[in-house]
Amino acid sequence: MKLNIALLAGDGIGPEVINEAVKVSDAIAQKFGHEITWKPALTGAAAIDAVGEPYPDSTHEVCKNADAVLFGAIGHPKYDNDPSAPVRPEQGLLKMRKALGLFANVRPTFTFPSLLDKSPLKRERIEGTDLVFLRELTGGIYFGEKGRKDNGDTAYDNCVYTRAEVQRLAKKGFELAMTRSKKLCCVDKANVLETSRLWRETVQAMEKDYPEVEVSYEFVDAVAMRLVQWPNSYDVLITENLFGDILTDEASVISGSMGLMPSASMGAEVSLFEPIHGSYPQATGLNIANPMATILSAAMMFENFGLMEEGKAMRDAVNKALEAGVVTEDLANGGKAYGTKEVGDWLAANV
Amino acid sequence: MKLNIALLAGDGIGPEVINEAVKVSDAIAQKFGHEITWKPALTGAAAIDAVGEPYPDSTHEVCKNADAVLFGAIGHPKYDNDPSAPVRPEQGLLKMRKALGLFANVRPTFTFPSLLDKSPLKRERIEGTDLVFLRELTGGIYFGEKGRKDNGDTAYDNCVYTRAEVQRLAKKGFELAMTRSKKLCCVDKANVLETSRLWRETVQAMEKDYPEVEVSYEFVDAVAMRLVQWPNSYDVLITENLFGDILTDEASVISGSMGLMPSASMGAEVSLFEPIHGSYPQATGLNIANPMATILSAAMMFENFGLMEEGKAMRDAVNKALEAGVVTEDLANGGKAYGTKEVGDWLAANV
Ligand SMILES: CC(C)[C@H](C(=O)O)[C@@H](O)C(=O)O
Ligand SMILES: CC(C)[C@H](C(=O)O)[C@@H](O)C(=O)O
Repeated sequence: MKLNIALLAGDGIGPEVINEAVKVSDAIAQKFGHEITWKPALTGAAAIDAVGEPYPDSTHEVCKNADAVLFGAIGHPKYDNDPSAPVRPEQGLLKMRKALGLFANVRPTFTFPSLLDKSPLKRERIEGTDLVFLRELTGGIYFGEKGRKDNGDTAYDNCVYTRAEVQRLAKKGFELAMTRSKKLCCVDKANVLETSRLWRETVQAMEKDYPEVEVSYEFVDAVAMRLVQWPNSYDVLITENLFGDILTDEASVISGSMGLMPSASMGAEVSLFEPIHGSYPQATGLNIANPMATILSAAMMFENFGLMEEGKAMRDAVNKALEAGVVTEDLANGGKAYGTKEVGDWLAANV
Repeated sequence: MKLNIALLAGDGIGPEVINEAVKVSDAIAQKFGHEITWKPALTGAAAIDAVGEPYPDSTHEVCKNADAVLFGAIGHPKYDNDPSAPVRPEQGLLKMRKALGLFANVRPTFTFPSLLDKSPLKRERIEGTDLVFLRELTGGIYFGEKGRKDNGDTAYDNCVYTRAEVQRLAKKGFELAMTRSKKLCCVDKANVLETSRLWRETVQAMEKDYPEVEVSYEFVDAVAMRLVQWPNSYDVLITENLFGDILTDEASVISGSMGLMPSASMGAEVSLFEPIHGSYPQATGLNIANPMATILSAAMMFENFGLMEEGKAMRDAVNKALEAGVVTEDLANGGKAYGTKEVGDWLAANV
């Protein structure tokens, strides 16, 4: 297979973890006879510094024409303390999601047996957790009309959803549930919000098309509780943009393996793959960042092309590295810590 | 002191736990020389069954003219699976909050040494946790314009806040922080929402009036994570209605003592006190419900009248009961379980 991949390294440790993901992906490509062309492009604070915008048109061109996007991380402390600054890296993120139509954010949370003790939760609570959130990513209150009235003394944000937007996301949820345990949870706040009632009635109407899937409906506040109490009781969860933002982050810390969690954002044409961790500016250039989440994101990318064996080879290599203790500082538990590059080298040699 | 207290027992176990709170409050009143007149009124499914509405005008009259409201719990399974039913108990709750102007929901999360092992979190994560959320309760997306367009295919919910609403809530937050560790966290999503930017700029402008309070600003998704990782790093948190709904519920389960957590909803004229747990319909009439959260809510009520010793006597009695093992089934750990009434009797005798 010939693959054109847009490479958006971004800020902080982004470029370092992206380098290792490229290294391991290239090793996979060589082993399985694929050819990857990497197309680097600017994003985040790096793009603001270079051309004054976090998601420039030139970057959009590269992404639009690629088969997929591999993304590092964005965010820089100089933009952190002023959410109303005219240009911020996050705006690039939102613009990119909308421009590329990345409507479904896929956020798995799973456990690695060797890392269970890193979880803030007791072992019996977290063991066996393997859930996936599908978060709607291009609608809702993020993209509704917002502004001020009354000389700035009144602010508003409108949350809007159409039935078609809900169907598109829910369809992915049902399909994913069919490949897993056939359990789907629709997370909403239908006892208060009209948009949630639209979500719920739309999903209810789709149930008949997936008779094997067992669907449950839970309020967002109840899910926020049960994620801490019994995360392993969930499988596939679908939800709107803002609830998804909060709950996927909550879910990401319960496993204790946050530094290893990959994600995908699926569009109709092109999809994007990125680690869920941030740009950790303090660690920039120190060769200490953990590249595994980015490498597992690249594995999701291969699988999304239907290259399941390739993805599995990457996952297996990561598992082997964890067992062999070939890990960065964050997972070394006081033992020997490898550098970002060394972990990448080891994985490239072991896929 | 002469106190007129509206008594809204509600549904499920509501009446049973309210009975015990009345019993213990009366014992306190007798000991400290106060006189309480209880004014029962209908609410929830009980009110729908009786008069067709969950918060009838007659109940509003009783509440408005009372010095405070003591509330049990509402919710009944027959209304559970249809969020679009024309009359639902929750609507009564929202109507009551708005009609009584209960703008600040006070939700503490703290730990009891004897119950630490009930937490889903590891002991070292949860030990020493003692935080309070102030959730704005009468604004935001709960009460903004909502509806449908395009023949029902588009739904919207508008989130609106005014500067005055934020100031009113934030003032309570600063004042509460001054009585505690002088740390205040403003929870928002100012990187995306205009209402959050109004929250943040309003709180920032108030900082100069409370020079001793150290204020931090955190995004709601980050707080959802840190609540699970290091709950004991928080003290007072202020937030808007919907974020507060999600985060206070998340916080309530981390301590392992959810069945014991009280709450208050403060208004300009009258305030309301209630346990955070639900109406547990399955437990109705079995004399097994834990009345302690309601009794601790009554303690908050006394303290809100400035009757600090009275509140402390109730808290101390609850602590003593926990240590002596005078507890209901949920806390009995396979040991002897007392009934709802017996726990109330013991506490009334020991305040
Ligand atoms: C940076 C921010 C705008 C973004 C979001 O809220 O979507 C982030 O929190 C995320 O989840 O990717
Ligand atoms: C029942 C529901 C409307 C309510 C809310 O969302 O405010 C509840 O979850 C709460 O937190 O008191």
